[in-house]
Amino acid sequence: MKILVVNGPNLNLLGKREPKVYGAQTLDELMAELKAEFPEVEMTFYQSNVEGELINVLQSADGNVDGIVLNAGGYTHTSVAIRDAVAGIEVPVVEVHMSNIAAREEFRHNSLIAAVCVGSIAGFGKNSYKLGVEAVRTYLKEVC
Amino acid sequence: MKILVVNGPNLNLLGKREPKVYGAQTLDELMAELKAEFPEVEMTFYQSNVEGELINVLQSADGNVDGIVLNAGGYTHTSVAIRDAVAGIEVPVVEVHMSNIAAREEFRHNSLIAAVCVGSIAGFGKNSYKLGVEAVRTYLKEVC
Amino acid sequence: MKILVVNGPNLNLLGKREPKVYGAQTLDELMAELKAEFPEVEMTFYQSNVEGELINVLQSADGNVDGIVLNAGGYTHTSVAIRDAVAGIEVPVVEVHMSNIAAREEFRHNSLIAAVCVGSIAGFGKNSYKLGVEAVRTYLKEVC
Amino acid sequence: MKILVVNGPNLNLLGKREPKVYGAQTLDELMAELKAEFPEVEMTFYQSNVEGELINVLQSADGNVDGIVLNAGGYTHTSVAIRDAVAGIEVPVVEVHMSNIAAREEFRHNSLIAAVCVGSIAGFGKNSYKLGVEAVRTYLKEVC
Amino acid sequence: MKILVVNGPNLNLLGKREPKVYGAQTLDELMAELKAEFPEVEMTFYQSNVEGELINVLQSADGNVDGIVLNAGGYTHTSVAIRDAVAGIEVPVVEVHMSNIAAREEFRHNSLIAAVCVGSIAGFGKNSYKLGVEAVRTYLKEVC
Amino acid sequence: MKILVVNGPNLNLLGKREPKVYGAQTLDELMAELKAEFPEVEMTFYQSNVEGELINVLQSADGNVDGIVLNAGGYTHTSVAIRDAVAGIEVPVVEVHMSNIAAREEFRHNSLIAAVCVGSIAGFGKNSYKLGVEAVRTYLKEVC
Amino acid sequence: MKILVVNGPNLNLLGKREPKVYGAQTLDELMAELKAEFPEVEMTFYQSNVEGELINVLQSADGNVDGIVLNAGGYTHTSVAIRDAVAGIEVPVVEVHMSNIAAREEFRHNSLIAAVCVGSIAGFGKNSYKLGVEAVRTYLKEVC
Amino acid sequence: MKILVVNGPNLNLLGKREPKVYGAQTLDELMAELKAEFPEVEMTFYQSNVEGELINVLQSADGNVDGIVLNAGGYTHTSVAIRDAVAGIEVPVVEVHMSNIAAREEFRHNSLIAAVCVGSIAGFGKNSYKLGVEAVRTYLKEVC
Amino acid sequence: MKILVVNGPNLNLLGKREPKVYGAQTLDELMAELKAEFPEVEMTFYQSNVEGELINVLQSADGNVDGIVLNAGGYTHTSVAIRDAVAGIEVPVVEVHMSNIAAREEFRHNSLIAAVCVGSIAGFGKNSYKLGVEAVRTYLKEVC
Amino acid sequence: MKILVVNGPNLNLLGKREPKVYGAQTLDELMAELKAEFPEVEMTFYQSNVEGELINVLQSADGNVDGIVLNAGGYTHTSVAIRDAVAGIEVPVVEVHMSNIAAREEFRHNSLIAAVCVGSIAGFGKNSYKLGVEAVRTYLKEVC
Amino acid sequence: MKILVVNGPNLNLLGKREPKVYGAQTLDELMAELKAEFPEVEMTFYQSNVEGELINVLQSADGNVDGIVLNAGGYTHTSVAIRDAVAGIEVPVVEVHMSNIAAREEFRHNSLIAAVCVGSIAGFGKNSYKLGVEAVRTYLKEVC
Amino acid sequence: MKILVVNGPNLNLLGKREPKVYGAQTLDELMAELKAEFPEVEMTFYQSNVEGELINVLQSADGNVDGIVLNAGGYTHTSVAIRDAVAGIEVPVVEVHMSNIAAREEFRHNSLIAAVCVGSIAGFGKNSYKLGVEAVRTYLKEVC
Repeated sequence: MKILVVNGPNLNLLGKREPKVYGAQTLDELMAELKAEFPEVEMTFYQSNVEGELINVLQSADGNVDGIVLNAGGYTHTSVAIRDAVAGIEVPVVEVHMSNIAAREEFRHNSLIAAVCVGSIAGFGKNSYKLGVEAVRTYLKEVC
Repeated sequence: MKILVVNGPNLNLLGKREPKVYGAQTLDELMAELKAEFPEVEMTFYQSNVEGELINVLQSADGNVDGIVLNAGGYTHTSVAIRDAVAGIEVPVVEVHMSNIAAREEFRHNSLIAAVCVGSIAGFGKNSYKLGVEAVRTYLKEVC
Repeated sequence: MKILVVNGPNLNLLGKREPKVYGAQTLDELMAELKAEFPEVEMTFYQSNVEGELINVLQSADGNVDGIVLNAGGYTHTSVAIRDAVAGIEVPVVEVHMSNIAAREEFRHNSLIAAVCVGSIAGFGKNSYKLGVEAVRTYLKEVC
Repeated sequence: MKILVVNGPNLNLLGKREPKVYGAQTLDELMAELKAEFPEVEMTFYQSNVEGELINVLQSADGNVDGIVLNAGGYTHTSVAIRDAVAGIEVPVVEVHMSNIAAREEFRHNSLIAAVCVGSIAGFGKNSYKLGVEAVRTYLKEVC
Repeated sequence: MKILVVNGPNLNLLGKREPKVYGAQTLDELMAELKAEFPEVEMTFYQSNVEGELINVLQSADGNVDGIVLNAGGYTHTSVAIRDAVAGIEVPVVEVHMSNIAAREEFRHNSLIAAVCVGSIAGFGKNSYKLGVEAVRTYLKEVC
Repeated sequence: MKILVVNGPNLNLLGKREPKVYGAQTLDELMAELKAEFPEVEMTFYQSNVEGELINVLQSADGNVDGIVLNAGGYTHTSVAIRDAVAGIEVPVVEVHMSNIAAREEFRHNSLIAAVCVGSIAGFGKNSYKLGVEAVRTYLKEVC
Repeated sequence: MKILVVNGPNLNLLGKREPKVYGAQTLDELMAELKAEFPEVEMTFYQSNVEGELINVLQSADGNVDGIVLNAGGYTHTSVAIRDAVAGIEVPVVEVHMSNIAAREEFRHNSLIAAVCVGSIAGFGKNSYKLGVEAVRTYLKEVC
Repeated sequence: MKILVVNGPNLNLLGKREPKVYGAQTLDELMAELKAEFPEVEMTFYQSNVEGELINVLQSADGNVDGIVLNAGGYTHTSVAIRDAVAGIEVPVVEVHMSNIAAREEFRHNSLIAAVCVGSIAGFGKNSYKLGVEAVRTYLKEVC
Repeated sequence: MKILVVNGPNLNLLGKREPKVYGAQTLDELMAELKAEFPEVEMTFYQSNVEGELINVLQSADGNVDGIVLNAGGYTHTSVAIRDAVAGIEVPVVEVHMSNIAAREEFRHNSLIAAVCVGSIAGFGKNSYKLGVEAVRTYLKEVC
Repeated sequence: MKILVVNGPNLNLLGKREPKVYGAQTLDELMAELKAEFPEVEMTFYQSNVEGELINVLQSADGNVDGIVLNAGGYTHTSVAIRDAVAGIEVPVVEVHMSNIAAREEFRHNSLIAAVCVGSIAGFGKNSYKLGVEAVRTYLKEVC
Repeated sequence: MKILVVNGPNLNLLGKREPKVYGAQTLDELMAELKAEFPEVEMTFYQSNVEGELINVLQSADGNVDGIVLNAGGYTHTSVAIRDAVAGIEVPVVEVHMSNIAAREEFRHNSLIAAVCVGSIAGFGKNSYKLGVEAVRTYLKEVC
Repeated sequence: MKILVVNGPNLNLLGKREPKVYGAQTLDELMAELKAEFPEVEMTFYQSNVEGELINVLQSADGNVDGIVLNAGGYTHTSVAIRDAVAGIEVPVVEVHMSNIAAREEFRHNSLIAAVCVGSIAGFGKNSYKLGVEAVRTYLKEVC
């Protein structure tokens, strides 16, 4: 089972930005820990601050991985284009957020992407990723 | 570790209502399966169609359980009172939904409850509950 | 043919509240008159001020009656949970209102429940119930 | 007792347009059936696609008929002018719709006309007309 | 100086509809009185309940009269088409209303037509017409 | 017959501000011309840029004049306090505007004051004042 | 003089929930103190988390008490049904809130209940109740 | 191949109204030029300022022509009734506008009709009609 | 204990304006009665129709009185500047209204000032002032 | 005559994504067919999923091509930056969409780009491109 | 070069109000420091809490100073009248705010005045004034 | 002192696009002039049309420069991602715009970025940059 974890804008700042909120782990460390947690999964990672490159990688993953965990960061609330990319590929996508977006500014309450994902997970810090991978795995087992 | 799973209105119809969408399992069966999945957790269940009784049970749980998984059903989108109950107790609450509420009618996109929960999980069918219990467990381990 | 008439909050005040507007008949008298009007129908009645109890009775009616006439009172405009109950049962439901809700306050113009009912009838005082029963009967005859 | 049934735009397409939704009966057949159902009522019919002609016929009916059943079709949601005509005449008007407008597009949820009618009936197909005539009759009997 | 007075839907009910509000004068009487008030003006009148016929008469007036007084009735709030007709002709148009539309229902507060007229007059009963004719006259004297 | 003409903020700039739009007449000249136009009326004038002073003068006028012509300038769209003053006095008030406010910025389309005046006149330049005085006079003649 | 004090959802948590905000007094202690403050008033208390039970008690109070002090908690902002109950009884009702709801989340700024109460008091902690009882007493003395 | 070109309100003013914007050609000349451009198409034309007559002609065309090019003018933004007529007939309809409605007033940005047409073309002056006819032709060739 | 009572626009009309609604007492009489009610309080009064003068007096009061009762009248709903003055001083302010503003026009439902006051009291006629003074007194006793 | 066809995000998925909706042709095939259709036009193509690269190519085209056909995909509804690019260059741009965006989700109804293009074409599948090229050609012939 | 600095409501509280936010300098000290910073500019100052007096001083400045720096305080968000004053004078006006209004309450995000000023500066504390004077100077040098 | 000036989409068109509005200077010339104006500042420049590259450069600047002047162009109004980047770095950012965005289209009135910057400057053409650098300098001097 191959799972791709896609990280959007500013997630490369993890460990540097507001460590009290987001923890002291860098994105690389967090991804490594995630990989270690699921030894039976062939896991790959991607991060970009560029909306279109996130679309590129989502498109390229289609047919090459079995599932995607997507944290689209700030593009979550503004990107019809990423929504179309998720809707246009066949590989199932699970949306994750480290913070509880419902408890933040009004403009973060709406996700343009959620409706075309299998489901969404938000608010559990780095565990949002673990739950996301778990969700993809179970989804794949049941559907396939 | 004690976890209470609280189910709101119409979830007692599971297995009877639209089995193609919600599966053929009844709520009892689903809860039993959930319990079996986490043998080390002391798990209890509650279901009511009455908003105020959900508030009663949330309040009573405070001090008696370590975490709560809450599927508030249709009250999710309309109940300031349940929001206040969640905010007023100290035991952490995780919000779950079986369906992907972002992909349904406009009036289901907003959750009044999410902002006062630890986090939210939606769209994974019965697995939303499993991920919810998992989320509570990890949260408790890290915080305590 | 069995028909259940469900009355929501404050309808138990009929005959006492603003008799010039709602008439001097009590709810019991009105229901009795309704029963007399349709001798061939096995008619039962229910009233509660509790949202969740209305959901309970709607769920219980499923399989036990052929049709439901529902006046959800003030919950009409706020209850996603009752909407879900109506949508989750198979027995057809007709929405009735004694007053013309479109001629009252702005917040009464929208019915959350109408979209999942067979149809709606509003503005004819106690005759709204008679037309509602008539509508259920004709619907059942044509569909069955 | 004289009752006028007024039909607005596109209702002349009945029987031709989407027969699975609206039935195979033409408007003439439906009106004839309606007349047959109420032999004691002197019933007349009118249909026009022109907003102003509907206003003309509503005005002319004042003093000549005892009640009006009005299906204003698409003008229901946009016509202040028809609303003013209904409000400006003394003969009571009952609003009917064949489809359940609350279950259709957002812009059909609001009726500009309902507030100045005696009441509204929607969602019962051709039976909406029968219930509408019945509603007018009972209204006239009680008021007069 | 030739002035055309155009009356929209339901203004033909004047004198019959709510005489306490609109006076006991019929539209014909009111127009006759208006004519008598301005003996030096060649005044003509038009009334229709049909939106498109109002457009026809506005278009036809272009080049044949020097000014227009327009009471578009209920179409005031909904008709982009009449607005386009007023904007498309060269003869100046003054908007009048007998009632104070700002003191009525919310949906009457906005006039789609006002922005393309020379100006607007509302709230003075039949005197709105006299003020309207006076306004057109002065406008013509100053501009020409 | 005594009429008070009240001018709000920035109307003291008339003749200086954008003379192409508002004409080269100063407010004093305009008021003088207005007075000359109605020799039989005892006319007084007031201008202030201070919202509260406009309220003071409206209140003081009550019982001392027979009618008021009010151009509240920019306060038209924002002042609940002036609205309350107009509503709180018994002398009839007519609202006037030199420019066609419906053809200007969105925030000028709504008048908080119009609903409590007898009526409104807008768009006729200095003639708005003449029509306003005329409207007050006719109103007083008919009512008294 | 008999006064009923009705407390809505989560007010039974007083003294336990955020004591720094709401004080260390329990609801029972607060109500006892309130009673002691008004020895000449026959005061009774009620608390429920169930919306419909609040309606029940409001209805039952009609004719049995002289006035009601109502803190509807979270239902304040969502309950058309409680509003209808207050409007449907003849005993005067005064709305109270311990916190200053205008200074909290946007969704707490609107009270559906205020418009049908005699008046509202908010922001004075436990003194809101005392002021509420005082307000009921004065109201009763003046009206009766 | 038979194509009907339907023109709505004020398009009969073409060539007279703002020739700098809309060109000096009359509607007749424009339609004649359009016909000459497509000699192999049997083309007919219709223009009316009356909403209901546009509905009449759309309905009558069903079964008699192969495609329709519709410029509904000002009714584009307000007419549910024309939308229903387009949706109720089987002949394909293409929406055209001479001006770029997205670059005009806010109330022209929304088309009620577009969603039930095959597609829309706007902004190309008289060429919008040519592109519209071309679009109908290609559509018919591919579908049939 | 020194308390200042500040009255905003149009409150000087008390006793003259709609005596059936606001009572026959003038503001002076009402203030005198208020003073008599609290002999132990050193009470001063202020009224102005000018927004900025209300700000001046609020600022000047800081350090000179112990508490303020503020009825900002129509400025309640529009004045960010008064809000800033209340927020900028240290003396506690209680907002009062004689009428039940929640039961009046939509634009009176929102108070810009409430959020920066200790609390609000509305709907009790002249007793709103008494309750306001009482609220200030209790607040001062508890805090100091 | 040189025309550049610019394709935005996810259009590179054509032929792979929902072939029943968008056809089985790849973007390359579609573009090749388009080129073949207009042998006299020197046509070039560009596709990118990156918003900024679309801006780059639009800017670079200025002065190098005679016209542009732009399908901005999901950026159509969110990109002020692309709008500014189109507005900032002198070469005329025509907006095209394969699907009928007015018949899709609400958030696709608004185009930020349309207002600064010559015109828009939507709903005709691959023919939208052909009509777009035709529209550019005619525009260039008439303007130049 | 003469520059007038105009300060609106509550700015006279500087140094007293929240010194941690606004600094310990009084308005007089701040203005003196500002004057010292620009010895070559003839600088005058004005402060008032009265909206209309701010309008008076803006009008009087026209012709007497070369530029104005305006901090309209709370009137920034509500005053159409000040906007009209700024638009009605010829001397250029620069808007300044000490705090970052975009980071404060929603109702402070919109400035009614900004659109008629040369430009706006916000968020730099007392330096906002220095930047404002600098902006006026450069503007005057370049334009004149 | 090191300052980075970041320019967003379409600012590379400066000097070419609408020179009457934006001046004839290219971005390079403008940046060179800016550098010359502040010889004591080590100034670097960046421009990109790609949202993600702007985020990259903002992130990279953290720790390497002392302050940032940011003109995010069209992304100002739509980019949550750039907002997050500004909020996630520690170096202070000042927002600048050459045009007065409050005087342009409605969708340009809101800046998503302003709230997380130190402050904003708009409307002074190229001087906005100079004022921006000046603002950063003063900010750094005072804070450090």
